[in-house]
Amino acid sequence: MSTVLDTIRNGVDTEVMFGTLDAIKARPELGTFQFRARNRWIDGAHNQSTIKGFFGAGQEDASRDEAFTIDAGEPPILLGSNEGPNPAEYLLHALAACLTTTLVYVAAARGVRLIEVESTLEGDIDVRGCLGIDDGYRNGFEQIRVSFRVKGDAPAEKLKEVVARAQLRSAVFDMVTNGVPVSVDVATA
Amino acid sequence: MSTVLDTIRNGVDTEVMFGTLDAIKARPELGTFQFRARNRWIDGAHNQSTIKGFFGAGQEDASRDEAFTIDAGEPPILLGSNEGPNPAEYLLHALAACLTTTLVYVAAARGVRLIEVESTLEGDIDVRGCLGIDDGYRNGFEQIRVSFRVKGDAPAEKLKEVVARAQLRSAVFDMVTNGVPVSVDVATA
Repeated sequence: MSTVLDTIRNGVDTEVMFGTLDAIKARPELGTFQFRARNRWIDGAHNQSTIKGFFGAGQEDASRDEAFTIDAGEPPILLGSNEGPNPAEYLLHALAACLTTTLVYVAAARGVRLIEVESTLEGDIDVRGCLGIDDGYRNGFEQIRVSFRVKGDAPAEKLKEVVARAQLRSAVFDMVTNGVPVSVDVATA
Repeated sequence: MSTVLDTIRNGVDTEVMFGTLDAIKARPELGTFQFRARNRWIDGAHNQSTIKGFFGAGQEDASRDEAFTIDAGEPPILLGSNEGPNPAEYLLHALAACLTTTLVYVAAARGVRLIEVESTLEGDIDVRGCLGIDDGYRNGFEQIRVSFRVKGDAPAEKLKEVVARAQLRSAVFDMVTNGVPVSVDVATA
């Protein structure tokens, strides 16, 4: 087998991965990132985010020729017309995606070849909170359940360890479970 | 002016909105909702969520003929090839979208006609945390800044009140600032 092919595991070039880790260890200031989104209201429950630039590894990223555009909406029962997934569903997606990518990277680093990774997420919410009907309920999900199904070339215990490690390192899992300080300012001009 | 047209404000049918609130007040069990996402790993940093059904207002929703599919990825500097926005960027989008929709609904309820709502979001992260290089850094954003620009037919103070009220009622703002209990289980079969 060729050495080049050997470095690719789960679609991740582990040589590049370990090189990136070494570079940030050597120059810690490369670890500073800033991600961004710009959102514009369209009508009713419909709004759209554009996502393109970010700062990372010491410079403005230039890898994206086009911005990503993402639509959010609400179903009719929540006064929209399904212009897109709703914001709470996007949060579930962000959580699933981050746990999955972290899991895939951890597996690549540990020599585990994955065959299949799927997850289903459920978030329970009583909308009496966010609708302002009953302050006994919080505005957001009371709880989120994530169920992973993982297949790979390692024993079950090893695959479970990889998922556990992903929880310990996932950026969005940290944010969703522990919260983040958010400042909001408003210009009305 | 016709009464029908008068009930639509900011693209929200306020008559339907107040009817929904009254219905949930009368039958609190209608407030129970469950949102869901299903995610599948594709390769490397690329994974995809499908979002369709949810439970709400006493039944399984049937308003969506097709599932929404959303791709997540990473930029090259984070070992992907921009297959989609990354998970942390999706979290910013979820937050922007929820604050915006809540703001639009609050304005509709309070008789404020909006002309324009835009927001920019920034999230600061030192990836030494999530990369496992330095435990002195958390995995997720250290902070998120949201800047709204809101134009409407009301005085600046009223518009600012609407944004403040949106923060008090937004489901995703609550989750991102306060955190949510998340359980993760794993099947390896």
